[in-house]
Amino acid sequence: MSLSVGILGATGYTGAELIRLLHRHPRARITYCSSRQYNGKSISQVLGFLRGSADFVLEEFDAQAIVNRCDVIFSCLPHGAGMGFISEIIDSVKVIDLSADFRIKDEQTYASWYTEHACAELLAAAVYGLSEVYRSEIAGASLVANPGCYPTSILLPLVPLLREGLADHSGIIADSKSGVSGAGRGLSLSTHICESGESFSAYKVGRSHRHIPEIEQELTIAAAAPVTIEFTPHLLPISRGMLSTIYFHTTHDEKILRDCLSTFYQDCPFVHVLQEGFPSTKDVRATNRCIIGLARNQATSRAVIVSVIDNLTKGASGQAVQNMNLMFGLPETDGLDSIPVFP
Amino acid sequence: MSLSVGILGATGYTGAELIRLLHRHPRARITYCSSRQYNGKSISQVLGFLRGSADFVLEEFDAQAIVNRCDVIFSCLPHGAGMGFISEIIDSVKVIDLSADFRIKDEQTYASWYTEHACAELLAAAVYGLSEVYRSEIAGASLVANPGCYPTSILLPLVPLLREGLADHSGIIADSKSGVSGAGRGLSLSTHICESGESFSAYKVGRSHRHIPEIEQELTIAAAAPVTIEFTPHLLPISRGMLSTIYFHTTHDEKILRDCLSTFYQDCPFVHVLQEGFPSTKDVRATNRCIIGLARNQATSRAVIVSVIDNLTKGASGQAVQNMNLMFGLPETDGLDSIPVFP
Amino acid sequence: MSLSVGILGATGYTGAELIRLLHRHPRARITYCSSRQYNGKSISQVLGFLRGSADFVLEEFDAQAIVNRCDVIFSCLPHGAGMGFISEIIDSVKVIDLSADFRIKDEQTYASWYTEHACAELLAAAVYGLSEVYRSEIAGASLVANPGCYPTSILLPLVPLLREGLADHSGIIADSKSGVSGAGRGLSLSTHICESGESFSAYKVGRSHRHIPEIEQELTIAAAAPVTIEFTPHLLPISRGMLSTIYFHTTHDEKILRDCLSTFYQDCPFVHVLQEGFPSTKDVRATNRCIIGLARNQATSRAVIVSVIDNLTKGASGQAVQNMNLMFGLPETDGLDSIPVFP
Amino acid sequence: MSLSVGILGATGYTGAELIRLLHRHPRARITYCSSRQYNGKSISQVLGFLRGSADFVLEEFDAQAIVNRCDVIFSCLPHGAGMGFISEIIDSVKVIDLSADFRIKDEQTYASWYTEHACAELLAAAVYGLSEVYRSEIAGASLVANPGCYPTSILLPLVPLLREGLADHSGIIADSKSGVSGAGRGLSLSTHICESGESFSAYKVGRSHRHIPEIEQELTIAAAAPVTIEFTPHLLPISRGMLSTIYFHTTHDEKILRDCLSTFYQDCPFVHVLQEGFPSTKDVRATNRCIIGLARNQATSRAVIVSVIDNLTKGASGQAVQNMNLMFGLPETDGLDSIPVFP
Repeated sequence: MSLSVGILGATGYTGAELIRLLHRHPRARITYCSSRQYNGKSISQVLGFLRGSADFVLEEFDAQAIVNRCDVIFSCLPHGAGMGFISEIIDSVKVIDLSADFRIKDEQTYASWYTEHACAELLAAAVYGLSEVYRSEIAGASLVANPGCYPTSILLPLVPLLREGLADHSGIIADSKSGVSGAGRGLSLSTHICESGESFSAYKVGRSHRHIPEIEQELTIAAAAPVTIEFTPHLLPISRGMLSTIYFHTTHDEKILRDCLSTFYQDCPFVHVLQEGFPSTKDVRATNRCIIGLARNQATSRAVIVSVIDNLTKGASGQAVQNMNLMFGLPETDGLDSIPVFP
Repeated sequence: MSLSVGILGATGYTGAELIRLLHRHPRARITYCSSRQYNGKSISQVLGFLRGSADFVLEEFDAQAIVNRCDVIFSCLPHGAGMGFISEIIDSVKVIDLSADFRIKDEQTYASWYTEHACAELLAAAVYGLSEVYRSEIAGASLVANPGCYPTSILLPLVPLLREGLADHSGIIADSKSGVSGAGRGLSLSTHICESGESFSAYKVGRSHRHIPEIEQELTIAAAAPVTIEFTPHLLPISRGMLSTIYFHTTHDEKILRDCLSTFYQDCPFVHVLQEGFPSTKDVRATNRCIIGLARNQATSRAVIVSVIDNLTKGASGQAVQNMNLMFGLPETDGLDSIPVFP
Repeated sequence: MSLSVGILGATGYTGAELIRLLHRHPRARITYCSSRQYNGKSISQVLGFLRGSADFVLEEFDAQAIVNRCDVIFSCLPHGAGMGFISEIIDSVKVIDLSADFRIKDEQTYASWYTEHACAELLAAAVYGLSEVYRSEIAGASLVANPGCYPTSILLPLVPLLREGLADHSGIIADSKSGVSGAGRGLSLSTHICESGESFSAYKVGRSHRHIPEIEQELTIAAAAPVTIEFTPHLLPISRGMLSTIYFHTTHDEKILRDCLSTFYQDCPFVHVLQEGFPSTKDVRATNRCIIGLARNQATSRAVIVSVIDNLTKGASGQAVQNMNLMFGLPETDGLDSIPVFP
Repeated sequence: MSLSVGILGATGYTGAELIRLLHRHPRARITYCSSRQYNGKSISQVLGFLRGSADFVLEEFDAQAIVNRCDVIFSCLPHGAGMGFISEIIDSVKVIDLSADFRIKDEQTYASWYTEHACAELLAAAVYGLSEVYRSEIAGASLVANPGCYPTSILLPLVPLLREGLADHSGIIADSKSGVSGAGRGLSLSTHICESGESFSAYKVGRSHRHIPEIEQELTIAAAAPVTIEFTPHLLPISRGMLSTIYFHTTHDEKILRDCLSTFYQDCPFVHVLQEGFPSTKDVRATNRCIIGLARNQATSRAVIVSVIDNLTKGASGQAVQNMNLMFGLPETDGLDSIPVFP
């Protein structure tokens, strides 16, 4: 069996990462790539590192072409921009949307953080694509809302603990740090080597980052009680990598917490719970893995969890491919079975 | 007036930073540098970047030479290593110790986190050198215990708020990130470019970093109540710079918190409280400044403070020079009045 | 068919890169890993990023075990250290040596740059493993001397031009820049983030780098005339990547030079000659590729070539796997068919 | 005595560096800063790192205000943009132009590499501001053309050797590497952390970089014979720092070459000739220094010189301040006497 795959908005970093991963996928091949800005050009003219390996001509969006040539579409368009296209094709092809458009179940909440929703009627059917947590729902879905990078790094360690009532759902803090690729390929002073290189900063401090409603929606479901989170994103002077340091109150000891996570993820090839020590972002670089380390501080009766992912892989395109595998009944690790690039 | 200054253990990063800063000091000159490892060599053979600018012959420790040639001594020796030397000379010259040896007032606490104290009799007279907080005590001191880098970045924003009762003293969390120079010039895999470059990690998670008792001692004094802190240090892939993200509960609004800090630091040339926005480590690079940004999150009734310093300057050698200025009645900014190196 | 592969000295960076590449190889599996320093430990205790993906117990060198369990051995030992082991097993298994021990054909030359040779009798049979240049010899070899990283980046563009007489063989200059991983995992001030991070320097300037005799041996063969090269290595503040800027005199125009290289490498999946523009090291990161850009400067009647490789992949372990594929008649791209990790 | 100093185009990196250096200058104060883009704003709104240290209101260009308020003007405008302004004020105030507009003596050459010259009548009086080489001419000048960064790093080592006939003036090659700040604060993919961070590349290979005519003009004067140079610029993944590796033929030995340079620069506080070894860019970071190391390669009868500067300091704003000091008879080191920021 071979899947025919299309990518909308293929020239950004998540599109480039999809191309890298699908190139190694044994059962999928790219048959369609769209780009409004560069349509007509070959993708290697836009992404020079593809010269001599993979290449495609970039096309304008064409619903009919997609229906004819694709089994599944990855949409890498910014929030709001893909809604129209997706509603045109969703009856004929499966869609994995990497934007925020179908992550937030509540239309008002989406509108208050993003913009008016143009096809809210699709929200009910959309499945939140946190692969390890919603494996069966994803398997039956035709529209998957691929999670954000920060939410993935925070939800993977917290969801099992909240479900089991092992973490106090009030007073959770996530102090997260992301590589610059999370900001995309667009130009701004904050991605300039001279401004953010050899430096470190916090941004959107307080209740201002758009990933907050997504994180709280899923933590609330897991805890079966309303969860409000304290979330502070930071910018690391590296291209790839994300680390979240998560604090919560618990009366349970380290072993119970660790066993809960180990059990929940025992059949999950990409989530690894450390028996001791803590991971670095380099331990997951360019892989679909999430590594979790944890400690409990007796003096504060708080637990501290450190989770790392590659923001472009498990935090975006890698999880999207994992979801495609689940949607089409392929081995979950197809195209994703790799060892970190180290050093 | 011209001060004669000596440095014990001059060849590490804090020693190098002292030489850089004192070179620009209008009223101080270096008259003595010791190094056990390199004694007899000129310092520029050990620190190549000094070639052609400043140079000294490195000597072995010699109490008599110090007494004859120095008004004040900076000790850059590791904890435990300088105690003996300091007790030999403390009656004749003023001493600023950059190690942890005289920071912890309680001998047992010091012993439990570090090692047996060899001259505990000096602890009572030693003054904790957080310049802006203990300005008058430092002015009269002959032995100053220069604060650690993490404590400086955490105490400067918290002490005024705790003194005024504007921050809840229970449940304080400090998530701190440091440049690699904090680990010193010694060799280890964790300072290897291939291991920690292009990467990010947490270390000593839970109640294990030696700066915890120092932070809690000072927060407890400020709050006039016992404070237990949650502290997580992280390693940034840059040479210099430290950022602490600090979380605490408070019922007071942003303006009240900001006004408290602005008032406390209004006559302090090195501490800058932002009226809006948040600083990056590059904003203080190679300066003695601390910049503080703050936000209050209504949804969590928590305040989030971001403070940045250069771990080698305000976090070590810069604050040491500031303390020397205070001890000798010199203008506080002598040798320290510089604009960040940007970009 | 499945090859059983052993690695001597598996815990350094070239060993780690071999493990990463072989993990994806469809027809090879690792059956033996030796480490004197860590024998008895599992490799994931030494290389943390392998936790949860690949793992092996590290053993001491054991000729009998190797003969019983391996079809081919990669030796990642430093020069001089592997000779003895290799001569013990070379009659029973094929060997790819990543050290310099079998690269230099002339015993005296080897001795003058390295050390006395312990098994010079093997030199005659050893094949220099520059894959694209010695493809057929490698296919028949039982001992392959895997080229150095600098030589690979310099020889790939120059050999075809010298063979065709399109480059003047006198006055060749190679100004090369390498990432830090080329220095290995050992500790030294020059691999300390604070010393070499955010910095750039030249080293071993003049006729002092040990790769010079290797480069000159192969250029001399290609030119069929004695070649003396000017070679200056530099240290880049990055983990991986190598770029060589090569200058030589020629009376031929850009098109002739480019056509010569394009023709020579037309059936080579890993060497890519640009029709215009110049590559960056990121274009080959973590791949076995070499990308070559070239310009001719009319004003100086000189050509300038820029070639990039990943020093750990095409510059070491990737080319070693490519040579294994050639030695055993496997598809040349097995285990090596990947797109650069970008960004 | 106190100089009143104005800056045209103060919000770029060279303007920021001028502000940093002048802030420490004992005999100069900034009395005027212009910015077309940001006029009316305070400079700390544009360059956040100035918050709390230096601040000025940015004004539009106003010849009368400049004449009334300034003794000297630094123009940091791009080539072509400042000509008009400068000709308006040059009769009343001294001008140091950091652009290329007055570096090239030959109007046609300037036009062929840049653009039509708008005030060529000023070219004759303009002095090329390579401080150590044209000290006396600069002292008498009212218009100084501040050299480019690449030319400074190449000319300082070569001019004395060519003057003395110790370097063959044909066949000179300069392989130069620059930090990203040389590209300015403007936005482009090549300054994006994800594109050029953790990477290295060559650009404008062959006879295409605009600094070539400037370099050749000065080498030709020094050699008293026409010099054509081979020049290849490269982009380093760091903010600041420039290293040039220079190759030329010579029959003279290392000692003679080194003595020539040491003698030429013996009274020059900023140029340091190493007796052995080679410098790194970190050795000059944020200083006005140039450090030169050299070796002669007997086998090639070539000499290799490595010179390092900070591209923003000796390569731009630092040399501009040095030239101001010379023009007004101030001590050459005023505002520039600092030790590198290390690490």
